[in-house]
Amino acid sequence: MAGAGAGAGDIDDLPKNEANYTALTPLWFLERAALVHPSRLSVVHGSRRYTWLQTYRRCRRLASALSHHSIGAGHTVAVIAPNIPAIYEAHFGVPMSGAVLNCVNIRLNAPTISFLLGHSSSAVVMVDQEFFPLAEEALKLLAEKGHSHYKPLLIVIGDENCDPEALKYALSKGAIEYEKFLEMGNPEYAWKPPEDEWQSITLGYTSGTTASPKGVVLSHRGAYVMSLSAGLVWGMNEGAIYLWTLPMFHCNGWCYTWALAALCGTSICLRQVTAKAVYSAIAKHKVTHFCAAPVVLNTIVNAPQEDTILPLPHVVHVMTAGAAPPPAVLYAMAQKGFRITHTYGLSETYGPSTVCAWKPEWDSLPPETQARMNARQGVRYVALEGLEVVNTQTMQPIPSDGKTVGEIVMRGNAVMKGYLKNPEANKETFANGWFHSGDLGVKHPDGYIEVKDRSKDIIISGGENISSVEIENFLYQHPAILEASVVARADERWGESPCAFVTLKSKVDKADEQRMAEDIMKFCKSKMPAYWVPKSVVFGDLPKTATGKVQKHLLRAKAKEMGPVKISKL
Amino acid sequence: MAGAGAGAGDIDDLPKNEANYTALTPLWFLERAALVHPSRLSVVHGSRRYTWLQTYRRCRRLASALSHHSIGAGHTVAVIAPNIPAIYEAHFGVPMSGAVLNCVNIRLNAPTISFLLGHSSSAVVMVDQEFFPLAEEALKLLAEKGHSHYKPLLIVIGDENCDPEALKYALSKGAIEYEKFLEMGNPEYAWKPPEDEWQSITLGYTSGTTASPKGVVLSHRGAYVMSLSAGLVWGMNEGAIYLWTLPMFHCNGWCYTWALAALCGTSICLRQVTAKAVYSAIAKHKVTHFCAAPVVLNTIVNAPQEDTILPLPHVVHVMTAGAAPPPAVLYAMAQKGFRITHTYGLSETYGPSTVCAWKPEWDSLPPETQARMNARQGVRYVALEGLEVVNTQTMQPIPSDGKTVGEIVMRGNAVMKGYLKNPEANKETFANGWFHSGDLGVKHPDGYIEVKDRSKDIIISGGENISSVEIENFLYQHPAILEASVVARADERWGESPCAFVTLKSKVDKADEQRMAEDIMKFCKSKMPAYWVPKSVVFGDLPKTATGKVQKHLLRAKAKEMGPVKISKL
Repeated sequence: MAGAGAGAGDIDDLPKNEANYTALTPLWFLERAALVHPSRLSVVHGSRRYTWLQTYRRCRRLASALSHHSIGAGHTVAVIAPNIPAIYEAHFGVPMSGAVLNCVNIRLNAPTISFLLGHSSSAVVMVDQEFFPLAEEALKLLAEKGHSHYKPLLIVIGDENCDPEALKYALSKGAIEYEKFLEMGNPEYAWKPPEDEWQSITLGYTSGTTASPKGVVLSHRGAYVMSLSAGLVWGMNEGAIYLWTLPMFHCNGWCYTWALAALCGTSICLRQVTAKAVYSAIAKHKVTHFCAAPVVLNTIVNAPQEDTILPLPHVVHVMTAGAAPPPAVLYAMAQKGFRITHTYGLSETYGPSTVCAWKPEWDSLPPETQARMNARQGVRYVALEGLEVVNTQTMQPIPSDGKTVGEIVMRGNAVMKGYLKNPEANKETFANGWFHSGDLGVKHPDGYIEVKDRSKDIIISGGENISSVEIENFLYQHPAILEASVVARADERWGESPCAFVTLKSKVDKADEQRMAEDIMKFCKSKMPAYWVPKSVVFGDLPKTATGKVQKHLLRAKAKEMGPVKISKL
Repeated sequence: MAGAGAGAGDIDDLPKNEANYTALTPLWFLERAALVHPSRLSVVHGSRRYTWLQTYRRCRRLASALSHHSIGAGHTVAVIAPNIPAIYEAHFGVPMSGAVLNCVNIRLNAPTISFLLGHSSSAVVMVDQEFFPLAEEALKLLAEKGHSHYKPLLIVIGDENCDPEALKYALSKGAIEYEKFLEMGNPEYAWKPPEDEWQSITLGYTSGTTASPKGVVLSHRGAYVMSLSAGLVWGMNEGAIYLWTLPMFHCNGWCYTWALAALCGTSICLRQVTAKAVYSAIAKHKVTHFCAAPVVLNTIVNAPQEDTILPLPHVVHVMTAGAAPPPAVLYAMAQKGFRITHTYGLSETYGPSTVCAWKPEWDSLPPETQARMNARQGVRYVALEGLEVVNTQTMQPIPSDGKTVGEIVMRGNAVMKGYLKNPEANKETFANGWFHSGDLGVKHPDGYIEVKDRSKDIIISGGENISSVEIENFLYQHPAILEASVVARADERWGESPCAFVTLKSKVDKADEQRMAEDIMKFCKSKMPAYWVPKSVVFGDLPKTATGKVQKHLLRAKAKEMGPVKISKL
């Protein structure tokens, strides 16, 4: 033996082999759940109930059937569906075939969906029967744009809880029924994990601020680490009963799709989120956890007594994110016995990047102070290795004074691979070795961050991101509009809603403004998803900088002065 | 856009960069714990209490001080200590310096420790004051063997709960005091994560029964995935209070060292494990979880009433592994209110490989049946991708019949990198793309495995594997037998046959031994397959180790002396 330090290198001189190294992927969680709890409920949808063994077999059927249709590595499978079993199964079945899953937001309109399908070259479109006409229109638009040779495999997902005519219609148009498609597959299909954990598992489009949505690509590796840490932040244990209020098409349900397999938990599906449905699921299925946008919390808090089951029969953990929940809502939820965990994140970070980790010392604070502490966005997730608030000029962290505003940047294994076919956006978003969230915030002396503003002018309405720039682009198409700028305005029902500041080409009388506003809204309704339509239209000149840039912060101040849009107005 | 399938490849064409990829390592968990819960207790040892901020600063001091002494990548740092704060800190501070941590079993003797230090070329030896003389002797032995130029940096860890003379003695011999060593380091040391997650984080020697212990090398990647999933199997949540009954030198406390940082939990140290100390820690610190070998459970179960705090003031989760716990002990623990999770694993698999996941349907079984179900080793851990029981000749899985015996093999990210400087052992242990545990077991129809024997304790008779443990279990049912141990004896006809060494409750005359042997064989014939029946029965005391373990190798030597069982005898 040589002296100390000799043998250096030896200790690392042990190569990877088949036995000690395999690609990280959440797909193994499903195989394990089927082994450990074959007869435990995996997915419940109305009277339909699947066990983990059944779900595993159905997912293998899906993978196998896709494979029979020559769908695999390099292909994208689009799913247009609310929270029903098929979209859950697609989270496993599609990547098991080697393909990449692309869940499409069902609230988008046909032109946007047509863009998505074209951009992702989706080889398969799996669509819930209710949304078949939407998909049909999107495909028609695509064909009109010269993509007539684009013929994706069209699968329609029937739902016995819905109008049977809708399914019949889809079948008459040549779509294959999802259950029939599964029957073509082998329930014992020998799926293979990805060869490389960096391989893509999903693609999801942001409602971006610029002209076209951007396709966020996630990896098996990232999905694995997020799934394993997803339960850790809010005491979600083995066998949790999870209610699907959060759409799975929103960043794969923040990875809870896969996390539930790791936890051998049960997914309770929900086609439509109402307070009554949420309370009834809590009572019927003993729901322990759900994620929800602040707007859903608001609905739950304000539900009429007869729709509730208060006092709650057991503790229900609620994770919320999106627009910062108003402290009043957090407080009201806590009063009703819900335990709120506040998180913040983006599609680009696999869902939550931060969690407002509760501190024991907050237990003794007055409830309003507690709610204020908990309304902050918090500290980094355990699966994310780096999170900072920086001065974007210098990339230096801003002081932890709760005042200085900087950009929130992230790095680590819970950051996306990048945007699909968008090298310019990737260059910008990954500048200086960090992912730039585009969100602005402060850091408090306790290290907790608080989002102050969205540098990209996003409006979060009912949990959905709306790009103000996109709405502006449409407004500019109105013949009477000279200039338009859209900002978020507080909204009692939706949290936020779009507020349009408009300069007309020729001034109208004060008396005619109401009619003109209605005309603009009607115009918008014909062009964009209903939730994008400005709920307020204000006429006048737009404040601008010397270089002619609209000073949105002044408009935001104005919208704030106006107070929230009242529920009665809706 | 081209047709479906075009764009194939695009979806995976997004390279890793600084923002979206970083080496997986449990070291970030500590940085996060210090950020999120700076003032929460991290480690408690008697009257000493550290917070997460303090622990992080102390670990950085350690890394920095090691660095000042030119210790880093490629070096090994040995720690010889019971469960005290310093060994916990070493789990972070040593790898933060780039070096590899080697925790040494304090129950080993000086010659073995001298072998370990020599084999690992440990550049630093950190030793608890009580074990300083042991380390001193080991180093002396090493010098005598011609390693006189081997001069590791010697650090002694003082403990105010112990004899101050022992510390003085160590200091007089030139050792640096641990706290003094920390003072040389910078508490804000800018540690770096490993460049590659495959880099080694720890080395731990197995107490092999064969001539030389083998050095198990673990990676940052494996430690990360095990730490993240460690809490998942038994509902160990954020803020858990963990009692250190399991030595940290046993496979890094099955990765709970790092897991506790991920959970921002609290470690309660314990120099000496007694039933009284365990109960008192439960009461004083509100301990929620601990891991313990079955022998510790036995002590807890049989503690005199005055040493206990029964009934337990809260639920205490206990993880046990090692030798299979007797169902009677599991039952008694459950009766006292401990919630037992039974696991099984090896140093080579970062601790537990399987968990006997409790099924709701067991709730209604009789307690004895429950204990029997729970005494099985169970199903694979979520961090381990593959676990099988195979016929080692064909490498095919054995049938799930609860009877056919095969070797338990594992593969995945929770399998060691390999044995240090031991290519022969690595070749053998990683044969056919699996890690060979050397343990033999069966698979039950529900997929749960049960360990039947170590492969070297297996008797292969007429090509059939026979578990010596099973035969012993039957022998214990014979009314006259106090103790029994079974080994293989050469057999002219069958290759090997079982040879039973038996201690009777009351001695019989030499003349009666033949009759008694026949009686025992007859008893066996009524209980087991004919080929299991011992062909030889030998009476007398069983040779044991200091810790009471039967020394089967001595019995095997004795069986060898006896020569083969002759054909004529059958």
